[in-house]
Amino acid sequence: MPDVFAERTQRSQQRLQATEADALVLFPSTNLFYVSGFEEHPAERHLLLFVPSQGDPVFVVPDMYGEQITEESWVPDVRTWSDGDDPLSLVNDVADEFDLRGGRILVDDTMWALFTQDLRRALPDATFGLASEVLEPLRMRKDGTEIEALRRAGEAADRASVEVRELGEEAIGMTETELAAEIESRLADAGGDEPAFGTIVGSGPNGAKPHHGHGDRKVGYGDPVVLDFGAYVGDYPGDQTRTVVFAGDPPDGYEQVHQAVLEAERAGVEAVQPGATAESVDRAAREVIESYGYGEEFIHRTGHGVGLDVHEGPYIVEGNELELEPGMVFSVEPGIYLPGEFGVRIEDLVVVTEDGCERLNDSPRTWQSL
Amino acid sequence: MPDVFAERTQRSQQRLQATEADALVLFPSTNLFYVSGFEEHPAERHLLLFVPSQGDPVFVVPDMYGEQITEESWVPDVRTWSDGDDPLSLVNDVADEFDLRGGRILVDDTMWALFTQDLRRALPDATFGLASEVLEPLRMRKDGTEIEALRRAGEAADRASVEVRELGEEAIGMTETELAAEIESRLADAGGDEPAFGTIVGSGPNGAKPHHGHGDRKVGYGDPVVLDFGAYVGDYPGDQTRTVVFAGDPPDGYEQVHQAVLEAERAGVEAVQPGATAESVDRAAREVIESYGYGEEFIHRTGHGVGLDVHEGPYIVEGNELELEPGMVFSVEPGIYLPGEFGVRIEDLVVVTEDGCERLNDSPRTWQSL
Repeated sequence: MPDVFAERTQRSQQRLQATEADALVLFPSTNLFYVSGFEEHPAERHLLLFVPSQGDPVFVVPDMYGEQITEESWVPDVRTWSDGDDPLSLVNDVADEFDLRGGRILVDDTMWALFTQDLRRALPDATFGLASEVLEPLRMRKDGTEIEALRRAGEAADRASVEVRELGEEAIGMTETELAAEIESRLADAGGDEPAFGTIVGSGPNGAKPHHGHGDRKVGYGDPVVLDFGAYVGDYPGDQTRTVVFAGDPPDGYEQVHQAVLEAERAGVEAVQPGATAESVDRAAREVIESYGYGEEFIHRTGHGVGLDVHEGPYIVEGNELELEPGMVFSVEPGIYLPGEFGVRIEDLVVVTEDGCERLNDSPRTWQSL
Repeated sequence: MPDVFAERTQRSQQRLQATEADALVLFPSTNLFYVSGFEEHPAERHLLLFVPSQGDPVFVVPDMYGEQITEESWVPDVRTWSDGDDPLSLVNDVADEFDLRGGRILVDDTMWALFTQDLRRALPDATFGLASEVLEPLRMRKDGTEIEALRRAGEAADRASVEVRELGEEAIGMTETELAAEIESRLADAGGDEPAFGTIVGSGPNGAKPHHGHGDRKVGYGDPVVLDFGAYVGDYPGDQTRTVVFAGDPPDGYEQVHQAVLEAERAGVEAVQPGATAESVDRAAREVIESYGYGEEFIHRTGHGVGLDVHEGPYIVEGNELELEPGMVFSVEPGIYLPGEFGVRIEDLVVVTEDGCERLNDSPRTWQSL
């Protein structure tokens, strides 16, 4: 069946052969979706896909999933077990058929210890690595359909971004949680399915905690507010950050900090081109922030890849010498965090093109409300 | 600091000593929340909590989380690493301090292979087990506050259940997805936070797939519709299933199938008492369905524990000889699935009491609309 999922499986198998690994073993994850077309959340029952280096893949799944997987996935060989049975007897059959007992097996990076422990017990002579060895290089290079989906998710985030910025003084007195609901509702109106991650609304000092979600603090006059949000459109997410003062005068020093982050973001994006390393993009953004004297306050990497996962390769971080290639999609999101005062982060997604990059977001980046 | 999380940590440490294990290593999960009070989704950065069998626990976390974890968790020893650093050097420090190199380490059951692989590399002489060895017995026995939270989640599900049933003929022509949105909106109105899992609306033949979510199929006259839903209220979820015909005459045989499931559910609930085994509850429900001649069509276990996770121990399944104890909470949810025709499932949560059990749901279980 020559669909996109079957083609990806074939390419995975070529890479398995090239790296002398014998099989991928996946469980419910974006990797599983990427090669099989079947989407599910992880759960406590053994639901495994074996992709041997040669031959057809085999699903081992709870029998309540049998019909559904046969319908939704291209994989024809779906073997089921019932509650009360031991799923490892099916695992042992597959291991024998594909001669995996002394092999090198790449397990899904997010596979639960509950399942890797069982695989290790069932196959004590096998050696284990991670599926990303084979799948990350494939997944990092997005095809045209994937980029188009990411573009649509970017447009939804842009639209929500503009509308939320337009709240202006209306946002004053709203709690962070209310503002987050406002953002999520506008993302939905703009064509988004569900939020791609926990929406961040970090007002005032909460903005200095990069992974603060949202809470009961009310947005006040002059508060810088970090807004980090995005929704899935189909299978691909948006991810955008803006830092806005909805009304009133910002705190001393804020304008310069915002300017530094804005310039750093631009410098990062300008450094993106085929052949540049991931770390060179991090350095380009970081140097700007250092030149403003805030190097110590930029406490995270500059970005992360975005695809079926909101965080995936390539990571834009010191030490990552990976050379960028057309089709890679990632965030550029420098920030400055002043504990007890405020934070500023500006984030856009870019896709590497033949001669530079294309931004997938283009909503206003100023700190002023509209 | 004598809060509930610190007390749970102490009890975990007593069990570590009793089972001759040297440490728990947790990552973002409900186990982590249970002992530390810190709640986060899993992600690609090393965020680990080491709970040694004696002494204070240690967090190893990305520095962007440092401030937040110090605020939200009772654990005083929070060590941070920066993007671009190697988090394993902190892991090695902790391993030396707690003398874990040749020890027995229980890793979080849901810990990603990405992290267990690193732990195995850093500690090649250690042996590994699962944290549930120590934590599942603790988590299965809910305290009064937890049961009260589960009761509130049950009430929210009950209220939504009644309101949705009252749609009657209004539901005819709605897609499953629209009906799911309707349920989720009523759960929110009833005090629910977010859906506890993907709401299931399985109409007509889709009801025969126990894990069908919802799709574009429209509810028709006479369609049996499996509705499986629940919302978190605070940290604890609801989980209820009803099978309803909104309007029109059901298919031949449906009434008897519904009656069989209803009686099986009642028999399961009546079998719940302290000292009874988990599998005896499964058998009690299964025998009723077998007596109706549908044993082969009841293709899953009778239930699962519910707590911080929607699926956790105790599992109500053949082979589980665990003896029930007061404070255990789980679902009783027999079903009959006729591929290509329809399915019926009825599910309630119960909490084991000193002399039997209390149902946490009590909305109507008939198949008729109201």
